[in-house]
Amino acid sequence: MEHGEYWTGTGWCSGNLTSSGSDFGFEVVHKCPVTGARAGILRTPHSVIETPVFMPVGTQATVKTMSQQELEAVGARLILGNTYHLYLRPGTSLISEAGGLHSFMGWNGSILTDSGGYQVFSLSDLRKITRDGVTFRSHIDGSSHMFTPEKVMQIQHELGADIIMAFDECIPYPSTREYVSKSCEMTGEWALRCRVEHEKLNDGSRSLFGICQGGVYTDIRERTAEALVAMDFNGYAIGGLAVGEPKTQMFDMVEATTAVLPNGKPRYLMGVGFPDDIVEAVSRGIDMFDCVMPTRNARNGTVFTRYGRLVLKNAHQARRFVPIDPDCGCPTCRHYTRAYIRHLFQAGEILAPRLATMHSIYFYLQIVCEMRQAIMEDRFPSWREEFLRTFRNEEEF
Amino acid sequence: MEHGEYWTGTGWCSGNLTSSGSDFGFEVVHKCPVTGARAGILRTPHSVIETPVFMPVGTQATVKTMSQQELEAVGARLILGNTYHLYLRPGTSLISEAGGLHSFMGWNGSILTDSGGYQVFSLSDLRKITRDGVTFRSHIDGSSHMFTPEKVMQIQHELGADIIMAFDECIPYPSTREYVSKSCEMTGEWALRCRVEHEKLNDGSRSLFGICQGGVYTDIRERTAEALVAMDFNGYAIGGLAVGEPKTQMFDMVEATTAVLPNGKPRYLMGVGFPDDIVEAVSRGIDMFDCVMPTRNARNGTVFTRYGRLVLKNAHQARRFVPIDPDCGCPTCRHYTRAYIRHLFQAGEILAPRLATMHSIYFYLQIVCEMRQAIMEDRFPSWREEFLRTFRNEEEF
Repeated sequence: MEHGEYWTGTGWCSGNLTSSGSDFGFEVVHKCPVTGARAGILRTPHSVIETPVFMPVGTQATVKTMSQQELEAVGARLILGNTYHLYLRPGTSLISEAGGLHSFMGWNGSILTDSGGYQVFSLSDLRKITRDGVTFRSHIDGSSHMFTPEKVMQIQHELGADIIMAFDECIPYPSTREYVSKSCEMTGEWALRCRVEHEKLNDGSRSLFGICQGGVYTDIRERTAEALVAMDFNGYAIGGLAVGEPKTQMFDMVEATTAVLPNGKPRYLMGVGFPDDIVEAVSRGIDMFDCVMPTRNARNGTVFTRYGRLVLKNAHQARRFVPIDPDCGCPTCRHYTRAYIRHLFQAGEILAPRLATMHSIYFYLQIVCEMRQAIMEDRFPSWREEFLRTFRNEEEF
Repeated sequence: MEHGEYWTGTGWCSGNLTSSGSDFGFEVVHKCPVTGARAGILRTPHSVIETPVFMPVGTQATVKTMSQQELEAVGARLILGNTYHLYLRPGTSLISEAGGLHSFMGWNGSILTDSGGYQVFSLSDLRKITRDGVTFRSHIDGSSHMFTPEKVMQIQHELGADIIMAFDECIPYPSTREYVSKSCEMTGEWALRCRVEHEKLNDGSRSLFGICQGGVYTDIRERTAEALVAMDFNGYAIGGLAVGEPKTQMFDMVEATTAVLPNGKPRYLMGVGFPDDIVEAVSRGIDMFDCVMPTRNARNGTVFTRYGRLVLKNAHQARRFVPIDPDCGCPTCRHYTRAYIRHLFQAGEILAPRLATMHSIYFYLQIVCEMRQAIMEDRFPSWREEFLRTFRNEEEF
């Protein structure tokens, strides 16, 4: 990836602001002979991404606390932006005027924008769902808006992400079979409308993923996945999981869905999750992940390591003059101690969430990278066993 | 300066944690033939510093929002730490246990710690001044403490700064001649006690500056400066200015003091100030500066540039897809636009104060650097004229 330098008033370099012509492509380059794990290559106009991949979440056109240069330095190539947030603030037209989201935020890696479905249902007020779409009030200023499948395609095309997502209803847990079935029927219709609208708008540089819903009902999951596969999307997401259901049920749903999905298309498990959940999902053939876990927890003083979670704010870290993880190669662990970071949290300093976030994002990117290497070298099962043993151990470290 | 890598458990490099033996030294290498401006070299155990120098303020062992690597990258070699804050949190003994402030915060440049005097008088509750010292209550938890000149020396030696400051009373403005005269007599006694205690504690690696007070009374300023010069400090600060008095009076006091100070010792104007004030003070023979102005204003959305102040939060910046200053070489101006930074401020994102602070600190360091070069090349008067003309112009840019 090149540096994201765009401003072309009278300075900076031009970078590759426009599509380089390398349209979307995905290829599974190696499969684990024992588990369902896959190593792949995902091609987008802005970068070539090795899978499995973890996408840091950049809700408001920033991965909270990090600069784009830091993201690039720790190896992020694909980040997620939130359609709902960006549509409301700073607004689609402003971002479009800036030359799209990449140019607006100075990020020349790849971007996936979500459909806004999840946020409309979790953040907005007074939402009303009809077959046509969803009307809702902004959580920022109470203004009234409507999202239809077509509108959501138009917004995402204006934002200019490399990968865009079909509009869906994110079904709450628990929900009745009847509710889930009816919702999935509607989401299926919406997916088709997205597919049609996307075809109209696309210049060949953006790809569209469908989102498989279905609650915790295996047959509905299978049926809706089959319907989406028939519409021929560029990739398939599994949504509506990690919303409160037991973990075993989550993985049952993942398995039921991947069984139906084509091998040659990327599979994205939305909003998952803990590091060990990601490892388990890779074992079941998932290629892409996003989650606010590493960033949100870091801002609250908890980081993830190879040895599990570490609460930096704890009093017994006050005089621990050692890095979070002495073996970690991240900028935080190479320069700062737990005692110092704890002091920064106690003192309410911005460097505290910065250092914690940097570590956890590096760690998440590191483990997907290690998994890929283990898959390529046919030693994924032993890597997984060792990782889970170390990560789930309960000892203080 | 080497990278500040200290942790010696089983990793990192050792860096130069202990004094390299290059004890304190100062030399004026060139003087402006027209104004009083001087270019100098300041030697401390941790770095060799070119003067004039601006010291970013790292109150709680961090220059707010910046990492130590970023500080180093923009050319900071000497930063300021606040004795009052660090003494209260995380506490002197913890920092001492970490190997001193440099090691605790992972900063291998030089550090100057202030005397705590200013904060005791501006932040703490229920302070009571006697000839012996000051008792006060912590602004954090209300606990009771006493600072004496000896105690303040002990704290600063434990913190392990390269340059430490004598304990003084920061006189409020306005104050009567009688009050100022009496206070300066006491501060003079405290300075001598600091000098004696410092001599006991010093291993040769730390240097001590006296602080010249005197309100806005020329004769008291002269008298107290003479008294301090007689005690032979390593350098001399001018304190108690930029506290509300008119600017002309401030510069009169600076001139009255520098006239008494020896040529071969560094001169530090505390807490000043705006970029144009710094230029004016350099013209009058000042070598060192510190101020929260660039960092504090940046966090509130206002940055300094060659063309004056710029309020990034203003609505008319919303669609200005240009850098803060197209000609600035800072990491912010090389990668981000005003429109993007304004959006980050609107959205309450941590990257906003980060990018703004980075720009303003770079700018402050840039102007002292340019001044030094202009002095060396005997063109300081024309540089000053051009800078003040551009900086003080009232046009929107």
